[in-house]
Amino acid sequence: MSETKALANWVVKNRLEDIPEDVRREALRAIVNYTGCALGGSPDPAVNLAMQAFAPFFGPATASILGRKERVDPLHASLMNGISSHVYDYDDTTPKNYIHPSSPVASALFAYASANKVSGRDFVHAFILGFEAESRIGNSVYPAHYDVGWHITGTAGVFGAAIAIGKLIGLNEQQMIWAIGLAATQAAGLREMFGSMAKSLHPGRAAQNGYGSALLAHAGFTSGVHGLEGPRGFAAVQAAKYDLSKITAGLGVDFDLRENTYKPFPCGIVNHPTIDGAIQIHQANHPAPESIRAVRLRVAPLVMDLCNQQNITRGLQGKFSVYHGAAIGLVRGKAGIREYTDESVNDAAIKRVRESATAVGDASLTEDQANIEVELASGEKFSRFVEKSLGNINRPLTNQQLDDKFRDQAVLALPADRVERAIELCWRIDQLADVNELVQQACEN
Amino acid sequence: MSETKALANWVVKNRLEDIPEDVRREALRAIVNYTGCALGGSPDPAVNLAMQAFAPFFGPATASILGRKERVDPLHASLMNGISSHVYDYDDTTPKNYIHPSSPVASALFAYASANKVSGRDFVHAFILGFEAESRIGNSVYPAHYDVGWHITGTAGVFGAAIAIGKLIGLNEQQMIWAIGLAATQAAGLREMFGSMAKSLHPGRAAQNGYGSALLAHAGFTSGVHGLEGPRGFAAVQAAKYDLSKITAGLGVDFDLRENTYKPFPCGIVNHPTIDGAIQIHQANHPAPESIRAVRLRVAPLVMDLCNQQNITRGLQGKFSVYHGAAIGLVRGKAGIREYTDESVNDAAIKRVRESATAVGDASLTEDQANIEVELASGEKFSRFVEKSLGNINRPLTNQQLDDKFRDQAVLALPADRVERAIELCWRIDQLADVNELVQQACEN
Repeated sequence: MSETKALANWVVKNRLEDIPEDVRREALRAIVNYTGCALGGSPDPAVNLAMQAFAPFFGPATASILGRKERVDPLHASLMNGISSHVYDYDDTTPKNYIHPSSPVASALFAYASANKVSGRDFVHAFILGFEAESRIGNSVYPAHYDVGWHITGTAGVFGAAIAIGKLIGLNEQQMIWAIGLAATQAAGLREMFGSMAKSLHPGRAAQNGYGSALLAHAGFTSGVHGLEGPRGFAAVQAAKYDLSKITAGLGVDFDLRENTYKPFPCGIVNHPTIDGAIQIHQANHPAPESIRAVRLRVAPLVMDLCNQQNITRGLQGKFSVYHGAAIGLVRGKAGIREYTDESVNDAAIKRVRESATAVGDASLTEDQANIEVELASGEKFSRFVEKSLGNINRPLTNQQLDDKFRDQAVLALPADRVERAIELCWRIDQLADVNELVQQACEN
Repeated sequence: MSETKALANWVVKNRLEDIPEDVRREALRAIVNYTGCALGGSPDPAVNLAMQAFAPFFGPATASILGRKERVDPLHASLMNGISSHVYDYDDTTPKNYIHPSSPVASALFAYASANKVSGRDFVHAFILGFEAESRIGNSVYPAHYDVGWHITGTAGVFGAAIAIGKLIGLNEQQMIWAIGLAATQAAGLREMFGSMAKSLHPGRAAQNGYGSALLAHAGFTSGVHGLEGPRGFAAVQAAKYDLSKITAGLGVDFDLRENTYKPFPCGIVNHPTIDGAIQIHQANHPAPESIRAVRLRVAPLVMDLCNQQNITRGLQGKFSVYHGAAIGLVRGKAGIREYTDESVNDAAIKRVRESATAVGDASLTEDQANIEVELASGEKFSRFVEKSLGNINRPLTNQQLDDKFRDQAVLALPADRVERAIELCWRIDQLADVNELVQQACEN
């Protein structure tokens, strides 16, 4: 059986009872983390500008966007949820493939559920299936696909959204195969966009186009039936090397949700160990910013590939600057949303420390590790080696830390009492008769 | 200056007076051909199903779809025009890069012009700029990009639509650079979809997403500024080999529109020489279908790559079967839209002749050439060598043949008197004060 057909078959036949209990629990953590990120990003200029650009094209106002008061059609709500939830680069990651997996899937699902009655059980089930399919498809083409320059969150994400919505609307196996094919032929998103608003467009379009793929397939709009494995299909075209067996091996037994991680810092994950080390030095040694003469970083080579920007002026660029990560950790002892504003990037003390930093790639370090050395004008030196960064699968955020992270973001969009109610509903989303109960709490209405 | 910036600069500064007269004339031929194709495809099931899938999401009904009575928002009109105009694979081609160039560009422009007042001068000017940019970007990545499996009409088309709409809405240079970046990060479409409805989705989405890219850029939504040439940009990610100098060499002097061709047959262009030869044998020798024992084809190797399907049951598959092309030419002496229906593919005589055919790739043949040999049960043989297929740049369709092709298709959507009026308006679209005058003739309202 082809991978496309096998995956479609699994999704169509799967029942929530087939999903292990620990996976269902991790799904709740992922949804809590996602919802906080969507709320935090919802007032961002990227969302405002996309709303402005597409307002004349919105369909009937049947759907809600998390964190916002406007009502739009569900496809545009998917797009906006996707932009919101990724714009701060604060959403979850599966380190094995660098996908931000929840954003494309949950952005489509929340848009759908805001316009249609969906039980929490069905919502969580569709989320798990979409997440799993997306991550497995990503595994099959990682790392060649990512290395050449694809933003895998966009390219794999469109499959996750198509499969999740396809499950909710009850696609049969043939329709699910078409939905996968239609997703494959819309898989897009370039890493060249990192540091611009377009990066957050990727999960937005993935959510919207995945949703649209399911709608087209449901109507009977055909695609090629070998979207994943065909000689001109997704894997062959978008990866110089790939292993399709990763899509189906252990399907239904092994779940990538178990390996999902939640970022403690709203920036490119490869910067996290550096920030972690910088915060540790701040907390232990309190070096005054003006006393810092040099900062020397040793990092995994991928960091130099992704985050080697030093001369920056915008908050978005800061997310992809390992130098900025070191500077805010050292100067402020934290790296929250306020450390990635334009103002923070142009703050004189942060700028000076950032510009005092040098970095070298070191192939002996994993992407969870970093070494940071700070030299003061006095000649005194402090250093930290971070072996496993906070947020790593072996040092995960606790549920309490997820709540704190949710609150820090959600207050940007909602009154405090509404934030608490939304957190509480998120944790028991699987028990809600109608997910709209949560959506309504999480919208500024 | 980077290629992205140079192209944006050229488009923003260009005036219609800068375009040579012969290029403007060819633009009219391209628009006539496009409009006939959009009308012919407009009642196709692929369009009906896409309309059905997206109807609940249509925005305010300000725009028209060529050939149809429904009014929708302009982005959905772009999508539907794109599907209509390509679903029969009858639209134009630039043989140097295999792009169907007009569909993504004109589909967006007609949608825009149906909802906004646009003069014929501005319309034709934006069309030429979009066409040219799209074709040049395609040239820069062809053939590696196409060979690996990208449907270049979708991937290059999104740039054409973004640039054409961007010109009409008056983007400045920075905005045009963003529009190009936003198009780059949405460039999609896999050749795996050939033979299914999803192939026609590609120019549809290219038109819709290109239009959307221009809208986002106009609002100030940023992208990376090296969408074309960046190390993780379009060319580097989507082509193993590329030559960016083809984007800017001779810009404003050499125009790919001069090399545009119009298909005499509604199927994959690489089948055309075979069909041409088969029709010649039909006309000269009138072999009775039941007398045909064997058909032997020698074709360019690419034909075997693209059109080596023999065991087929659907009209759409016939478009990518060189065997079917030979069979309809021999049996019916023509290859019009009616020869690519499901009924025709399953016609007993055509099926028998198709199944009697064999084909071999021959690297000594160009993609405009084919050799066909027919052997009768009597042992008698007829053969034809086609050196330059009808529709080739050296054997172009005349304006009269373009009119005939328009009529053959447009009668599927419009009453005969409306067809004649639409043809007449198309030929003088550059003189219309408002292109909507043509759109209204070309809509079933």
